[in-house]
Amino acid sequence: MAKLRVKGIAFDMYGTVVDVGAVAEACKQVAPDAAAFNAQWRAKQLEYTFLRSLMGKYQDFWKVSEQALEFAIARFGLTINPVERKQLMEAWLRPTPYPEVTAALPRLRERHPLAILSNGSPKMLRTGLGRAGLRSYFRWVLSADAVRTYKPSPKVYQLAPRSMRLQKQQILFVSSNSFDVLGAKSFGFKVCWINRAGAPLDPLGPRPDIVVTNFDELETAVK
Amino acid sequence: MAKLRVKGIAFDMYGTVVDVGAVAEACKQVAPDAAAFNAQWRAKQLEYTFLRSLMGKYQDFWKVSEQALEFAIARFGLTINPVERKQLMEAWLRPTPYPEVTAALPRLRERHPLAILSNGSPKMLRTGLGRAGLRSYFRWVLSADAVRTYKPSPKVYQLAPRSMRLQKQQILFVSSNSFDVLGAKSFGFKVCWINRAGAPLDPLGPRPDIVVTNFDELETAVK
Repeated sequence: MAKLRVKGIAFDMYGTVVDVGAVAEACKQVAPDAAAFNAQWRAKQLEYTFLRSLMGKYQDFWKVSEQALEFAIARFGLTINPVERKQLMEAWLRPTPYPEVTAALPRLRERHPLAILSNGSPKMLRTGLGRAGLRSYFRWVLSADAVRTYKPSPKVYQLAPRSMRLQKQQILFVSSNSFDVLGAKSFGFKVCWINRAGAPLDPLGPRPDIVVTNFDELETAVK
Repeated sequence: MAKLRVKGIAFDMYGTVVDVGAVAEACKQVAPDAAAFNAQWRAKQLEYTFLRSLMGKYQDFWKVSEQALEFAIARFGLTINPVERKQLMEAWLRPTPYPEVTAALPRLRERHPLAILSNGSPKMLRTGLGRAGLRSYFRWVLSADAVRTYKPSPKVYQLAPRSMRLQKQQILFVSSNSFDVLGAKSFGFKVCWINRAGAPLDPLGPRPDIVVTNFDELETAVK
């Protein structure tokens, strides 16, 4: 695998560093077809970030997630009480690191300063990283909220070079989300796609610099 | 139903004025699960318009549709030859009016000047309207291509007041697509949602001024 020379690493949060399996579990409590319900919720959550960014009508990721949940509930014809609704949303505050992540982060941090760069709201990121025991590994926790728009807008990616005081091509951006990989590459980062699921890449532009299946492979590539 | 006082009407094209059943038919020739394949293609087509707009990397709707097809083919593991690929794409050039549309348009045009305002490329719109026999009903055929970004960016909606020489609140914008309804309402049009499928509205902002199930009900509302 080609080695990458970079001076800092910025990570996407959800689906990349942490899993939101608690959300899938919470869906099982309320929806007969929990997987489809969860997929609908996630798809709308993402779509609403795009729509709000394009319309110039920003709301933070917590609010967007609530609205996407509202749509999924209506679409699946579910009746959900306020306690269940709260449980569904609060599952977003209990992410868990992917298995190899907790061991890999301290080693990565020895060589490079690390950042989180996420669509998540500051509160979601702070609470989630704290509960996952990961907060101390990241020198910066950067939220799209600071620029009131969402990825893949270049305004969001610009937060990393500005805070990390590096050139964008000196930063390796790591994400498991295809659209985020494309947006980051289009912006000008070095990019690593963590393709855990073996998905095809969206053919929208330049390919990522490296593709790995987990953090161990990432560590090898940046050693 | 409340009556709407407007001075012109602008319509979304695909899914609103015309059906793209030819695309669904073409999918049946190449994919065992044609409905899922077509749904994947359409979802990516829409997602790519959002992503390209946010990244500032515009390509026209024909190109975006080709790239979305490429992804769907890879995702479904299909082997498709160049002739089949061409047939899939060219189905987009053979849209058919929804059943009541051809009779309703001349009556609507008697009272109001009509426009098309679509993400479609100029060639797609010209060819599609011509083959559907609808070209003469629209005084303006406006494509997002003129501003090199996509709905729901306000830049696209702004094409209508500029060309029609009307204030935005004097224009009724008609679409079957929830995201387009929200974008148009956020922009400042009067908005009619043609909800043919009885879908829930995305809870992202102000509701449309009227909701109808077809062009006949629309006609009654603007009489």
